[in-house]
Amino acid sequence: MCRWLAYTGAPILMEELIFKPKDNLIQQSLHSKSPRTPTNGDGFGLGWYDKQPYPGLFRSIRPAWNDSNLRDLTSHIESHLFMAHVRATSLATIQETNCHPFRYKNWLFVHNGQIANFGQIHQALLAKVSSKYFENILGSTDSELMFHLALTFGLENDVPAAISEMVRTVEAAGKEKGVAESLWMTLGISDGESLWGFRYGSNGIGPTLYVSPDMVELRRLNPDLTGKLGDFAACLVSEPIGNYQDSWHAIADNSKIIIHNQRVEVSDFKP
Amino acid sequence: MCRWLAYTGAPILMEELIFKPKDNLIQQSLHSKSPRTPTNGDGFGLGWYDKQPYPGLFRSIRPAWNDSNLRDLTSHIESHLFMAHVRATSLATIQETNCHPFRYKNWLFVHNGQIANFGQIHQALLAKVSSKYFENILGSTDSELMFHLALTFGLENDVPAAISEMVRTVEAAGKEKGVAESLWMTLGISDGESLWGFRYGSNGIGPTLYVSPDMVELRRLNPDLTGKLGDFAACLVSEPIGNYQDSWHAIADNSKIIIHNQRVEVSDFKP
Amino acid sequence: MCRWLAYTGAPILMEELIFKPKDNLIQQSLHSKSPRTPTNGDGFGLGWYDKQPYPGLFRSIRPAWNDSNLRDLTSHIESHLFMAHVRATSLATIQETNCHPFRYKNWLFVHNGQIANFGQIHQALLAKVSSKYFENILGSTDSELMFHLALTFGLENDVPAAISEMVRTVEAAGKEKGVAESLWMTLGISDGESLWGFRYGSNGIGPTLYVSPDMVELRRLNPDLTGKLGDFAACLVSEPIGNYQDSWHAIADNSKIIIHNQRVEVSDFKP
Amino acid sequence: MCRWLAYTGAPILMEELIFKPKDNLIQQSLHSKSPRTPTNGDGFGLGWYDKQPYPGLFRSIRPAWNDSNLRDLTSHIESHLFMAHVRATSLATIQETNCHPFRYKNWLFVHNGQIANFGQIHQALLAKVSSKYFENILGSTDSELMFHLALTFGLENDVPAAISEMVRTVEAAGKEKGVAESLWMTLGISDGESLWGFRYGSNGIGPTLYVSPDMVELRRLNPDLTGKLGDFAACLVSEPIGNYQDSWHAIADNSKIIIHNQRVEVSDFKP
Repeated sequence: MCRWLAYTGAPILMEELIFKPKDNLIQQSLHSKSPRTPTNGDGFGLGWYDKQPYPGLFRSIRPAWNDSNLRDLTSHIESHLFMAHVRATSLATIQETNCHPFRYKNWLFVHNGQIANFGQIHQALLAKVSSKYFENILGSTDSELMFHLALTFGLENDVPAAISEMVRTVEAAGKEKGVAESLWMTLGISDGESLWGFRYGSNGIGPTLYVSPDMVELRRLNPDLTGKLGDFAACLVSEPIGNYQDSWHAIADNSKIIIHNQRVEVSDFKP
Repeated sequence: MCRWLAYTGAPILMEELIFKPKDNLIQQSLHSKSPRTPTNGDGFGLGWYDKQPYPGLFRSIRPAWNDSNLRDLTSHIESHLFMAHVRATSLATIQETNCHPFRYKNWLFVHNGQIANFGQIHQALLAKVSSKYFENILGSTDSELMFHLALTFGLENDVPAAISEMVRTVEAAGKEKGVAESLWMTLGISDGESLWGFRYGSNGIGPTLYVSPDMVELRRLNPDLTGKLGDFAACLVSEPIGNYQDSWHAIADNSKIIIHNQRVEVSDFKP
Repeated sequence: MCRWLAYTGAPILMEELIFKPKDNLIQQSLHSKSPRTPTNGDGFGLGWYDKQPYPGLFRSIRPAWNDSNLRDLTSHIESHLFMAHVRATSLATIQETNCHPFRYKNWLFVHNGQIANFGQIHQALLAKVSSKYFENILGSTDSELMFHLALTFGLENDVPAAISEMVRTVEAAGKEKGVAESLWMTLGISDGESLWGFRYGSNGIGPTLYVSPDMVELRRLNPDLTGKLGDFAACLVSEPIGNYQDSWHAIADNSKIIIHNQRVEVSDFKP
Repeated sequence: MCRWLAYTGAPILMEELIFKPKDNLIQQSLHSKSPRTPTNGDGFGLGWYDKQPYPGLFRSIRPAWNDSNLRDLTSHIESHLFMAHVRATSLATIQETNCHPFRYKNWLFVHNGQIANFGQIHQALLAKVSSKYFENILGSTDSELMFHLALTFGLENDVPAAISEMVRTVEAAGKEKGVAESLWMTLGISDGESLWGFRYGSNGIGPTLYVSPDMVELRRLNPDLTGKLGDFAACLVSEPIGNYQDSWHAIADNSKIIIHNQRVEVSDFKP
């Protein structure tokens, strides 16, 4: 199981969310409470937007907790929209190209979860990726392939529709191999303007996904942060961080969340 | 351009060929005389056979010349059949899974050269790999794909026939995209018993490939080595190593070499 | 807190102890039960003796559990005397030169524990290392410095006496800075013939250290292993591995163990 | 021999100097024309100032030419004062803590050159470092030790005086061991406000050091850059980069250069 967070709002140093909060992503990666994957030590990644046309990417196969470059970069780079991911796997190889986020032009993509029996449908799914996007696949994960299937299905024009078709495609490929319930996922996606989150399981139950409290609540809980966060700030996380963990709002199974123009909308996701 | 060597003969410490000779592979990797790729600093790999059922593999993305683990391993591991490879690329990502040798069960495979316009035919060639071998592809190089195409075409039963069909398949895929001359390669292949070498170019000109002098000449040139090399020893290299560089025998373009049962046979390779 | 094991006996593939036992070192490194250092993901190392004059060393800053080179090497290299170590630190930098074992000529050294307030006495202790050994210090850990102090104090001639003087020297340096109880350690040391283990704490309580059951018990517990282990085999571990964890014998605090000529001797260690 | 550059002026993306110019530092690192050290593939580092109190640092042991993180960071991070360094060594270990720049609080330090017979005086010089700075030494290079000696001798108050005393101290230590000419160096140093460069050899001949053409000349040579470089920009390099290599000004042997408040001053350096 992986962990991730995505932030959009007033520009902040990335360390404000990645290193400073209690039970932050890096602490979680080292002291996991999950019995299934006790440690997220199989690489990490950051993707951030700034005034450049495409987002920056920093990915490494070192554990996030002992990478001094990561600490320096997050304490020097400010961003109004960024994603971070820590990886745990017993499957695909540990290499930078298998670390999230994945990037295509102005798009970033992070994933937690997995495709069941991926080895059985990997080759068939690769064949469905448009040649336009194929050479942007650099690694061997189910996650990167899901991103490129979604690109093939029009992610750049309609995110929820493309993710729906990606889900249907994966599930259909699974069924051909006798796998009834193929997908188990949360996704974080951005084009640099909007931030999308998805929580889905083929069996109706996906991994957890949370959104931060609204600004009124945030200011009440963190009077000190008021200056830093400005008018609007929102964060998606696979598991709550910080001192007020009970204040995070769980996104329901089979739902999506869109954060755009300082507005947060949650709705059903029924592919 | 990459560099490689393959050895078969009496068991020797791998350093005897990799570090000790004048102008050895590691020296070549750092002080290349080639204007095209002045340095082979993009990873390396070793594969070696011993009494275990499958060969051992050690691959790293560090430059070979500054890896202290490599020096220790080659000065402690003896093998009667091994391969070493240093990589230079401006193309596929630097990651261990893109380092040679590639392995499937008891088979090892190294490659120097490239498929022209690989990006245009990568996806089509991947679709031709048998599902039996597909999940053994871990990286993104043309080299690893050539190996898995050859496996698909029966490498485990008939090496020259499978390599021929691989060559024809790659050239046909290239022609569909308007590429007249797709392949430029030397290959080193072993099953742990025999050692095969191939030199081929679609345009009739492949990268260089050399075989070591025969035993009579070797003993004359290296009286000191006589004890170490025993009854038989042969080595394939992309470029000559050692003090007697003029004594290496060039393998002609579009030829193959088979070393088996202490015999060396060179013949045409016309796919 | 780090973890380590050391083996001496009939030559075996290193994986027999490192990867195959239940709750082996690699499993322990990932699923630690210790609240203080939940994960040993900050590098690892192997040192092994064979017929070469000096032992081989393989050290890496990747977590041991996701290093495919480590898996291959331990399944191909046989040794009659070897050590393995997994590291967890919040202190010294993560780099290969800080990974155990440390080596000087035919000597290997592993350590678990720490010097309290090391930063305050680091420089003073460095000044006490003989210039003969100084340039063999490549990293920045307390462990490597302890080894080189012991070398300075005659480790090559009398191991317990040199370790005693090292302990007294560290404790005296600590006391000068007002630290009453400076040392907390287990050590594993070998010259390629004998294997020494030490358990010590300045306050009378050291980290745990265990020795494997004697051969009669081992054969009763593991009828299958009889062939592999030959006449004699013994293993020191920081924490028990395998199916019969209760059968390991704890070494008492402030004790040493010497395994030599197929004999195991435990005695007091009072520096 | 290493290579480095240091820039101060209008804020620019670091790639403008590190990747974009003809014969840039990265190209130089791969295609060296120096027979002594044909490749600078033994790690690299970046240090940059922004509005944070201390500079950021990014160091890696991968060759600079194949590090995709380096490319991304330099194309996303703007700085008004930064340094970059590529390393070639046959001596000290390849590890991040041996990569330049070295940092202490707001200070950065890069070095090209070496201390002759460093192994003979390493321990004696370490003993001269003030305990205040000692624990900031993380690696094992002569360069980092030179920086910490200079800190000990008052670098934070008077840069040329501290560098002079460091030089005298190293030369005296060398002479005690019979080394007549110990030092061969260029240095780049900054506190975030000013930039200092030194070129010195104990034998009167140091490695090369160049400063960029003045603004009038720069604008004439690069009409396109006028907008980017603003009122003032200056760059120190170990070897000229860009299209107008003959326009760089060589700093004479045993000289120093100070760039402060948009002024450039060159003067003698006679320690």
